[in-house]
Amino acid sequence: MAGSSFGTIFRITTWGESHGSAIGVVVDGVPSGLSLCEEDIQIFLDRRKPGQSKYTTKRNESDSVQILSGTFEGRTTGTPISMAVFNQDQHSRDYSEIAACYRPGHADFTFDAKYGFRDYRGGGRSSGRETIGRVAAGAIASKLLKELGISVTAYTRSIGSVTMESFDPEEINKNPFSFPDADAAKKASSLVEDAMAKCDSMGGIIECVVKGMPSGVGDPVFEKLDANLAKALMSIGAVKGVEIGDGFSVAHATGLSNNDEFYIEENGIIAKRTNHAGGILGGISDGSDLVVRAAIKPTPSVASLQHTVNREGENIDIQIKGRHDPIIVPRAVVVVECMTALVLADALLVGMSSRLDNVKKIWKP
Amino acid sequence: MAGSSFGTIFRITTWGESHGSAIGVVVDGVPSGLSLCEEDIQIFLDRRKPGQSKYTTKRNESDSVQILSGTFEGRTTGTPISMAVFNQDQHSRDYSEIAACYRPGHADFTFDAKYGFRDYRGGGRSSGRETIGRVAAGAIASKLLKELGISVTAYTRSIGSVTMESFDPEEINKNPFSFPDADAAKKASSLVEDAMAKCDSMGGIIECVVKGMPSGVGDPVFEKLDANLAKALMSIGAVKGVEIGDGFSVAHATGLSNNDEFYIEENGIIAKRTNHAGGILGGISDGSDLVVRAAIKPTPSVASLQHTVNREGENIDIQIKGRHDPIIVPRAVVVVECMTALVLADALLVGMSSRLDNVKKIWKP
Amino acid sequence: MAGSSFGTIFRITTWGESHGSAIGVVVDGVPSGLSLCEEDIQIFLDRRKPGQSKYTTKRNESDSVQILSGTFEGRTTGTPISMAVFNQDQHSRDYSEIAACYRPGHADFTFDAKYGFRDYRGGGRSSGRETIGRVAAGAIASKLLKELGISVTAYTRSIGSVTMESFDPEEINKNPFSFPDADAAKKASSLVEDAMAKCDSMGGIIECVVKGMPSGVGDPVFEKLDANLAKALMSIGAVKGVEIGDGFSVAHATGLSNNDEFYIEENGIIAKRTNHAGGILGGISDGSDLVVRAAIKPTPSVASLQHTVNREGENIDIQIKGRHDPIIVPRAVVVVECMTALVLADALLVGMSSRLDNVKKIWKP
Amino acid sequence: MAGSSFGTIFRITTWGESHGSAIGVVVDGVPSGLSLCEEDIQIFLDRRKPGQSKYTTKRNESDSVQILSGTFEGRTTGTPISMAVFNQDQHSRDYSEIAACYRPGHADFTFDAKYGFRDYRGGGRSSGRETIGRVAAGAIASKLLKELGISVTAYTRSIGSVTMESFDPEEINKNPFSFPDADAAKKASSLVEDAMAKCDSMGGIIECVVKGMPSGVGDPVFEKLDANLAKALMSIGAVKGVEIGDGFSVAHATGLSNNDEFYIEENGIIAKRTNHAGGILGGISDGSDLVVRAAIKPTPSVASLQHTVNREGENIDIQIKGRHDPIIVPRAVVVVECMTALVLADALLVGMSSRLDNVKKIWKP
Repeated sequence: MAGSSFGTIFRITTWGESHGSAIGVVVDGVPSGLSLCEEDIQIFLDRRKPGQSKYTTKRNESDSVQILSGTFEGRTTGTPISMAVFNQDQHSRDYSEIAACYRPGHADFTFDAKYGFRDYRGGGRSSGRETIGRVAAGAIASKLLKELGISVTAYTRSIGSVTMESFDPEEINKNPFSFPDADAAKKASSLVEDAMAKCDSMGGIIECVVKGMPSGVGDPVFEKLDANLAKALMSIGAVKGVEIGDGFSVAHATGLSNNDEFYIEENGIIAKRTNHAGGILGGISDGSDLVVRAAIKPTPSVASLQHTVNREGENIDIQIKGRHDPIIVPRAVVVVECMTALVLADALLVGMSSRLDNVKKIWKP
Repeated sequence: MAGSSFGTIFRITTWGESHGSAIGVVVDGVPSGLSLCEEDIQIFLDRRKPGQSKYTTKRNESDSVQILSGTFEGRTTGTPISMAVFNQDQHSRDYSEIAACYRPGHADFTFDAKYGFRDYRGGGRSSGRETIGRVAAGAIASKLLKELGISVTAYTRSIGSVTMESFDPEEINKNPFSFPDADAAKKASSLVEDAMAKCDSMGGIIECVVKGMPSGVGDPVFEKLDANLAKALMSIGAVKGVEIGDGFSVAHATGLSNNDEFYIEENGIIAKRTNHAGGILGGISDGSDLVVRAAIKPTPSVASLQHTVNREGENIDIQIKGRHDPIIVPRAVVVVECMTALVLADALLVGMSSRLDNVKKIWKP
Repeated sequence: MAGSSFGTIFRITTWGESHGSAIGVVVDGVPSGLSLCEEDIQIFLDRRKPGQSKYTTKRNESDSVQILSGTFEGRTTGTPISMAVFNQDQHSRDYSEIAACYRPGHADFTFDAKYGFRDYRGGGRSSGRETIGRVAAGAIASKLLKELGISVTAYTRSIGSVTMESFDPEEINKNPFSFPDADAAKKASSLVEDAMAKCDSMGGIIECVVKGMPSGVGDPVFEKLDANLAKALMSIGAVKGVEIGDGFSVAHATGLSNNDEFYIEENGIIAKRTNHAGGILGGISDGSDLVVRAAIKPTPSVASLQHTVNREGENIDIQIKGRHDPIIVPRAVVVVECMTALVLADALLVGMSSRLDNVKKIWKP
Repeated sequence: MAGSSFGTIFRITTWGESHGSAIGVVVDGVPSGLSLCEEDIQIFLDRRKPGQSKYTTKRNESDSVQILSGTFEGRTTGTPISMAVFNQDQHSRDYSEIAACYRPGHADFTFDAKYGFRDYRGGGRSSGRETIGRVAAGAIASKLLKELGISVTAYTRSIGSVTMESFDPEEINKNPFSFPDADAAKKASSLVEDAMAKCDSMGGIIECVVKGMPSGVGDPVFEKLDANLAKALMSIGAVKGVEIGDGFSVAHATGLSNNDEFYIEENGIIAKRTNHAGGILGGISDGSDLVVRAAIKPTPSVASLQHTVNREGENIDIQIKGRHDPIIVPRAVVVVECMTALVLADALLVGMSSRLDNVKKIWKP
């Protein structure tokens, strides 16, 4: 199925395999007149680039983006923006082992079940490199949001048993784990190093906060803002859970403790005293910060010996070689941020026509 | 926006307000030849009907469904199936209080922010009665799945601090909380009665298990099976979190402990020794049981005094009258089950064309 | 497939069979605040009602519409508007002949080929009564367009060899053929009566003109305004051809004669001296009148003896009984008008976000 | 809006401007296992390549396609197939004249009206070069259809007053006009040369015939096969009219003459004695040949002096320079063929789930 597209008006279509000649994305529906250059995209891509610390894969992927269409004289034209990253680090290694077997925790088996065969080089389409297209597109969405006064910031909330205890936005890009808390980052270092020593890997939780969101964005019923955020985040390969606001802890709350009281701010604006709801009520933004979280599973590629089966239906043992991240969380932070931005950009464009008076502002001013 | 539709091929469109003349759904894309009568639908609707125990609202809603199109001589014809429930319990009560104010935890404020005004009678479109359309459609999806040997079963996993400790499928429909564990149900009774005494409400977690799912269903990237399940469940009004398999606890796992080893069953089928993944790898079903969970917030309508604001921008106090559920969880169980069934039915139909040899089976047999 | 929906933001979903209990439509994505009552819809439905002259079927279909959701205190709320017409003229006649055979020019055979069986009563889903949903929805689209200063007017351009030679908008509703030319209507009368006498039927061409259309509406490439108009009109059962502006006659034109020169009007507005293009250039409206035409085939239900086959695969003769229109054109005029209005309403809502400055007008005023 | 995508399951997304760095397409939803290489695509692209006769532009565009993803070991993998043609003939010419003015018959004015500015180099996104993506994608669709025994053949039916009078499929690729009639081609030569001498251009009609189409493909109501064909063809820049089967001439027919009688062939198959319907009844294929036609307007770029306006709102005269086709028809033939193939491929994949027994063939064999 055409499963590589996302969004209704601000709509992206990604393509490319891990070890194919290129990976890319087409971003359609971007309003004309947005200033945009390759550097705007590259900054985001560099945040997911591997090899930036000893806790990420040592693969050398420069991942330089090219804008192939959709801009003119430094601005978007309203036509589809095509972007591509040409692969350079294509090891001509021997894939015979991975080709024949089904790695635990990977999509090798399910791709074969669905398609009958697969591009097994580096995980093919199920590789984490697929997120390059998401991040390139998300960079444009973020730039559009910025023009509307909206900022999206993701960071690591926890790694294994280490949870952030303070929030310093400046700190996020200073430590290799994207923690907004230097102490947590330090504690995580020893945890992850411990896992690396055991040829094992770690998981964690990423949190994303959106500031400046106007109220009234999102649609009732199936196109709720939180429903689309849940889909967006759960579509990231390693994510196994998504929550909004207080999330799973609402199961332990009572109505009185979970309800957010409204009050009138000095400037006359309606606000909430608490934000258990995470900025969304009935699927529509309420003007408070949006707060979403995603649970990231530990990297399935571990160097330890594992039992599994091969395509011939035999029980075998494998030991996965290659250069793998002992933890995906830090590199997934920008992916969570970008998927969030994509959902919001689309919801804002789609939501322009909710009222007749807004329609008249554009077509009968 | 056209936010009231869900699904690509098996596609539903719901409509109706809590206190309007009717509520309904159009189900398009149902294959022809499926045996279907109103009783098939009514059984599902009766499971979400209020007034079945002292723990649900005392409103008397008979919610009798009518099939208005799409069947002929007891079978589906392949054309859209329109179903409606005509409202009968429309109290001609005084809505002036609710009309003027923004109830905490409700969508009153956000609907006004989006649309400029709202149908305030009983919550209008944001009412839980909106789920009638989902359940009626889900009944058809479930029947289709049954024809393919797939069963979907949802139940209450926890209410407040009470979590199920045993699983007896027969028990689910025997206690007022839809717990598969009679002891848990007993414990929950006192918890909920306690909340009722305090004019407060409770939340919980619903779990849904799918058996008989073939491997190879779902699409990579954005149309992952788990991504669509996440959207489907998060689109239910009271849901604040969704997880697949081990969900949020993967954040504490390591790669070795979280990976599910493959092995060959005696019949030659490839199976997994564990199911941390919840039956989905890379967004595609792996043949194990699907396991999804949704966190349900406590009913926001509580009879206690609350602070809030009115449309005129004044701080006010309110006390919500009317007949409200002290806990939504039991009535939401069938909604979770139906949304899961809808996602699966659509994924199965969409997934028929993934391989050329399957295409030939239909068009060049 | 989910083929009963049309439009992206202003999106309709129709349902119902000719002789089922009801026929209806759900209209989603209508902006809130549009004044709307059942009378607004009924006026349009009455224009397609049969039995208004001797040239249409004598069936008595009152076709009274009910609005079941989506309005409150006389205005649209932004939520889906569900409308239904309950069937009253359900003759409990004997359908055995039609059930067993494939009428020439009808969809009996193709429905069976696709679905394996069909609701044969009165044509089931392939009946012209299916257009009730389109017209009810189109009435709302027309009302929205009117708020933006846009009018849509369809009329009969030709019946058989009789083509309109003058245009008097007042005349359209005065003659039974919806001709804007009283003389043409008179000539058509004798043509059609002649066909009726021979137990035969006639076809014709419907033209639709849109005035007040702003420039800049429609999207390049696949969502061109003319592409969507072509789909919309060709989706009407009896339509076999669609053209925009000069249409098929451009095949005989030269570039110089077909190009429309631009010039500056006294008020400074850019206009065209001719309108061969029919108001659309590159798929986007140019500010001139839109002009579209649809070719309507003669009613396939004729009382003369015809050769055909039955479901058992035998060659048979049939004589179709019942009350059929000797010409569909007059009743299809309002359907063409409504499908045109639906395309424009959707294109206008979708097109609100084409420029960054327009996005800011709504979200950062 | 996201207007650069087409199709539901077999879904394409095109991108690129005439004089940008590249033009391309992403084809998603192609079943796995289809043998595919760049040569399969190049053959189709070469048919739309200019410079092949004196009747097409002298521009030298080699248009070599690269497949960047979605195939492995010579077969499609089921993941998106990205293809690109890198532009080589990017004249660094002076665009100041075209940048400032609105060429008659072009989309310059409407793009500015919609987006506020435009990429004016060679027509930008509204250039005929946009069809490269359609043709590359259509080549894959054609290959898929061939696997199912379906062939799609387009050719020139008329140029100006010259209409084909015989049909020899071998002849189509032998003359510069893609006429299946050598005499017609000869007559057209002098017509077109005459137009060239006058610095003028010509239009014509393209016909497309599909053989081997199974019955039962297409969906009722809005997703009728003919509706989607109409949209597909009308979305081609120069097309102003589309018809199916007898098309506009049905307006002059009577029911008896227009109805196609069914009969039983010797092999027991149900067939039609005539094919006025063009192979589609009620929007669903009937097993006869599909016949569609598109009216192509004369090239708007003519070298003669024309009156128009500039962006500053002044009346001006222009003379369009550059190398333009005196007639687009021959190069558009492959585009019509490809758009037809894309519609059919999608309809076939979407239509696999129309019956429960077909669903069981795939999921419960």
